[in-house]
Amino acid sequence: MNKGMLIVLSGPSGSGKGTVLKKFLEENDFKVSISATSREPRENEIDGVNYFFKLREEFEEMIENDDFFEYAMFNGNYYGTPKEYVLKELEKGNDVILEIEVQGAMQVKSIVPDCVLIFMTTPNINILKERLIGRNTESMEVIEQRLNTALAEVDYINCYDYLIINDDVDIAVRDLKDAIKNAKAKVAKNNNFIKYFKGEI
Amino acid sequence: MNKGMLIVLSGPSGSGKGTVLKKFLEENDFKVSISATSREPRENEIDGVNYFFKLREEFEEMIENDDFFEYAMFNGNYYGTPKEYVLKELEKGNDVILEIEVQGAMQVKSIVPDCVLIFMTTPNINILKERLIGRNTESMEVIEQRLNTALAEVDYINCYDYLIINDDVDIAVRDLKDAIKNAKAKVAKNNNFIKYFKGEI
Repeated sequence: MNKGMLIVLSGPSGSGKGTVLKKFLEENDFKVSISATSREPRENEIDGVNYFFKLREEFEEMIENDDFFEYAMFNGNYYGTPKEYVLKELEKGNDVILEIEVQGAMQVKSIVPDCVLIFMTTPNINILKERLIGRNTESMEVIEQRLNTALAEVDYINCYDYLIINDDVDIAVRDLKDAIKNAKAKVAKNNNFIKYFKGEI
Repeated sequence: MNKGMLIVLSGPSGSGKGTVLKKFLEENDFKVSISATSREPRENEIDGVNYFFKLREEFEEMIENDDFFEYAMFNGNYYGTPKEYVLKELEKGNDVILEIEVQGAMQVKSIVPDCVLIFMTTPNINILKERLIGRNTESMEVIEQRLNTALAEVDYINCYDYLIINDDVDIAVRDLKDAIKNAKAKVAKNNNFIKYFKGEI
């Protein structure tokens, strides 16, 4: 059986990745990578669905065992992307989507070199700023930080396989589908060649 | 000034990479990555052209300093791909080609994530076998080893950006040019977008 395809999605906070991904997943059968955290579950949050909830000591043991693609600490709690769930689903032949920031994406690529890297962003920094302000959830200080991060992140676009400019959600969903379809066609063609090369067909 | 582009070329021994690359370089201005070795220079070999010749102790110090993309030992001598030459040429804005085997290529990708990975091979394993036998330079035992390595290497094709099937040298040279042209067009388009995103144009 063929392994599943790992799609790694990055892009600035406020780029609308989450909305696009949600719409994409309503129509497409992809597993979504689940983060682990050492914070307490909130009401209605389910272990293994929203997060893998871990005790601080468990999380730190996982760090020592190199069980994460990447991890970080926010507000005194650990957050990370465990390798195990992603690698198991790929082995089972399931396609997986992993939303992760730029440095983490490079890390994932080094561990799963046949993953497909997709970068999504707003058409420009001003639209990003408007969207972040429009959310009305962050202070101007946090927004300024996010904009600076975005300016640094876009410099990594050349490390990605596909760039999706999210100006309209429906078009961005279609572009995401097209990128994945294109990547799958390439893999199918390659796998066919590999079999032919080996004399299996 | 824009950084140069790093092209990483892999493919089985006997795939004709060397011949294709030689023809390509006659017409295209690329720097070629130079290997380092701890073996004695042969007559006519020039330091910094054929190889960077190093004393064993120097080579081992470079290993300790993490100065290589990858290194290995053959017949009691070290061979490796130093990072410094490649990274300096890229910084100067020069395009660089690096011929390296599959594992090394994955290593390079993790250090230079915007490099372009190109895989070159014969159309099938039997043609590879014929070419290796035709060279008349290796024992059947060595040839069998190389064929087994080739069968393992082609499984990595999906980790590469471009696949070139070398059935005819001139066509393979043209395919290599086209792949690089395509990669450069993508980078130019991305860099343009990055400037637009940041409001610089």
